[in-house]
Amino acid sequence: MQEKNILILGAGKSATVLIDYLLRDAEKKLRKFVIADVSLEAAEQKVKGHPSATAKALGIENEAERKGLIQQADLVISMLPPSFHPLVAADCVAMSKHFFSASYSSAEMKKLESEIKEKSLFFLNECGLDPGLDHMSAMQLMDREREQGHTITLYKSFCGGLMSPEYVDNPWNYKFTWSPRNVVLAGQGVSSFIRNGYYKFIPYHMLFKRTEEVHFPGLGTFEGYPNRDSLSYREIYGLQDIPTILRGTLRTQGFCQAWNVLVQLGLTDDSYEMDLPKGFTYRMLTNTFLPYDPNKSVEVKIKALLPEVTDAILAKLAWLGLFEDGPLALRKGSPAKILQKLLEEKWNLKLGDKDMVLMQHQVEVQVGERVKRLVSSLTVKGDDQAHTAMAKTVGLPLGIAVDLFLEDKFSSRGLLLPTRKEIYEPVLQQLRVEGISFEESESWIDEK
Amino acid sequence: MQEKNILILGAGKSATVLIDYLLRDAEKKLRKFVIADVSLEAAEQKVKGHPSATAKALGIENEAERKGLIQQADLVISMLPPSFHPLVAADCVAMSKHFFSASYSSAEMKKLESEIKEKSLFFLNECGLDPGLDHMSAMQLMDREREQGHTITLYKSFCGGLMSPEYVDNPWNYKFTWSPRNVVLAGQGVSSFIRNGYYKFIPYHMLFKRTEEVHFPGLGTFEGYPNRDSLSYREIYGLQDIPTILRGTLRTQGFCQAWNVLVQLGLTDDSYEMDLPKGFTYRMLTNTFLPYDPNKSVEVKIKALLPEVTDAILAKLAWLGLFEDGPLALRKGSPAKILQKLLEEKWNLKLGDKDMVLMQHQVEVQVGERVKRLVSSLTVKGDDQAHTAMAKTVGLPLGIAVDLFLEDKFSSRGLLLPTRKEIYEPVLQQLRVEGISFEESESWIDEK
Repeated sequence: MQEKNILILGAGKSATVLIDYLLRDAEKKLRKFVIADVSLEAAEQKVKGHPSATAKALGIENEAERKGLIQQADLVISMLPPSFHPLVAADCVAMSKHFFSASYSSAEMKKLESEIKEKSLFFLNECGLDPGLDHMSAMQLMDREREQGHTITLYKSFCGGLMSPEYVDNPWNYKFTWSPRNVVLAGQGVSSFIRNGYYKFIPYHMLFKRTEEVHFPGLGTFEGYPNRDSLSYREIYGLQDIPTILRGTLRTQGFCQAWNVLVQLGLTDDSYEMDLPKGFTYRMLTNTFLPYDPNKSVEVKIKALLPEVTDAILAKLAWLGLFEDGPLALRKGSPAKILQKLLEEKWNLKLGDKDMVLMQHQVEVQVGERVKRLVSSLTVKGDDQAHTAMAKTVGLPLGIAVDLFLEDKFSSRGLLLPTRKEIYEPVLQQLRVEGISFEESESWIDEK
Repeated sequence: MQEKNILILGAGKSATVLIDYLLRDAEKKLRKFVIADVSLEAAEQKVKGHPSATAKALGIENEAERKGLIQQADLVISMLPPSFHPLVAADCVAMSKHFFSASYSSAEMKKLESEIKEKSLFFLNECGLDPGLDHMSAMQLMDREREQGHTITLYKSFCGGLMSPEYVDNPWNYKFTWSPRNVVLAGQGVSSFIRNGYYKFIPYHMLFKRTEEVHFPGLGTFEGYPNRDSLSYREIYGLQDIPTILRGTLRTQGFCQAWNVLVQLGLTDDSYEMDLPKGFTYRMLTNTFLPYDPNKSVEVKIKALLPEVTDAILAKLAWLGLFEDGPLALRKGSPAKILQKLLEEKWNLKLGDKDMVLMQHQVEVQVGERVKRLVSSLTVKGDDQAHTAMAKTVGLPLGIAVDLFLEDKFSSRGLLLPTRKEIYEPVLQQLRVEGISFEESESWIDEK
């Protein structure tokens, strides 16, 4: 067995579980790791003195250092923000290194495809949670049905990063368990899907009113809202003629109705910069989005402007501090950034808080004259603040895929997604060993 | 007197009145005109065989031809779409030609400022209706008050291009009297203003709910909605510390409520492309923005989704054909473009239709302990299809400014707006001769 050198770029929160998993058998498997981050301290915290791993400081835009580290590796795992992936991927192609990430495969990545193939490299993207686990579990279920000759007529899939219900202690039933910015901007742009053969497009300002209920056995009911472009998944999953396809995001009940008020007011707008004077308060901020009326309070004006606002919703806004006279933590920036700064104070995880990742696929298949309904659900709870459900479900699929690749389990080469059976079968099998598995239920419904 | 050569670029609808005005005394004033348009026919229609004018065909991106024509001129008037102005302005600076337009002075224009000054050129932008007449009339009124030592505490200004009420024959009380695309996209982005010292920001999806009534003597009540960035006008008008400033767009009563339904559904969205299959109808298009429900009609679903939709609003949507089974006139494009195509069929001016331009400034000034309220209103009706109110109010201010400049009435040089007295006084005086003048009323209100 030959020694392998693996470079892990980025040692943020979401890399913890990935690194722990890969370091487990590193000595036995003759693998050497370099963990590089802009913060040497962060990299060292991940290495934890492991004999097979070295921590390095690396500013990713330092070309010489970046290329030097990549040159010494056989395989590169990028846990960097997605915007850096094209840079790293281009170096990997140039130096004939394999590449792994949990991020979306971009157009820039696509440009490298022919060279990746020529050089017989293994480039795997979208191998985290969403995208990642969603692809693998959905394809396993649907490929199985298709192999039995069944036609898939409906595919809906929902995913959400939430608080584990035992740890909920605020009226929103929500805290940040991943990128606050992504949560604040979630759903911006148009969301598109197909329902029974009818195209559906929902503009952002209507999105949080257009939720549907999603039930999880033992956990209760959540709400799902359509998540951007579901139509593109028809091609990725081989579902070109499917009458219903929808991908959505999960929230606890009541969240979307209250979040919608922030959207309606304009507090999630990221398209322009505010530059507010010193002494500007959160109450004044809320008031900037309301009509002028010296005889009415901010609370009364919200209810007048948005008749759907109940006292329960008002209480959620009040809990955030949006009616308080405290000064803004950020005065210059888009409304979305100013809001994010406030939410980061209010929705931060406390020591001991545990998060939860939920995913559910709903699939209907035509079996002769009958329709079978399959519901496949995943619930993962965090172990502790480092080993969150989010870090596990992002890091393990990627870590397992890297391990399997190094063990020569994959014969495919090229620019790949984990939608292919050769990849998803062994990854899902190992995820089950790690305690991450879906529960499937089946029922029969009358033909529609 | 020396002969002057004037180049007019663009012979579209809005150039008619401008050209007619300038050709009036062309021979007597020893002026020669070249009117150049991408369509020679359009240019010839404007020349109408006038001895002092020549029509030319010009593709504006043909550098050699464009520069050749500019070289032969003393002064260039650009009636081209605003995106071409930087190109033309740069040539004018390079060849030391004066430049006039009715469009917003852009950042690219600003870059030329020092060279314009150095060469003592006269570059006048924003000298049409809005921007243009709004600047001149507002500044005349406010400069007069300031010269009397009064402090301006409120400035609101509204402008709208509408149908002359005698010619209204559809439930929207509206037809296109200027760029349909600008009408469909009107208000996109955020609208910002100040009200009694309070900053106000209105996101697009709330804009058409946040209207106020504007009364025109003899015409009745209209509705005004805030028009994008009013805050920047503080600097332009020297109103840095004003507690209330708002610029708005006028519509007939009931228009905004119905238009808001199109906004809410997502039909004015210009941020993504639809690519709809052959046979797709307007009813199907409307349905794409509504929840799936096989038991409810499109009309019922709209009312369920948007409780504010009345039968009168539904009738307006029906009149547009949005519930009809007719095929889309455009299947590929943004929702805004698909909607525009439909509206262009429905809201087109018929032969004999006459349009109307309305403008109103509301100004409050502190006079000692008292507050004086000034309301200055303009109503201009179209004469015929060529001499519309829009063409008159865009073309005459610019034509008059050009004429006055050629008569050596302006001593200013540089990159200018008609906010300066030297320009607005004689232009407004001549506009009065041409039948375009404001009526002003004055009242006193208790101090607030």
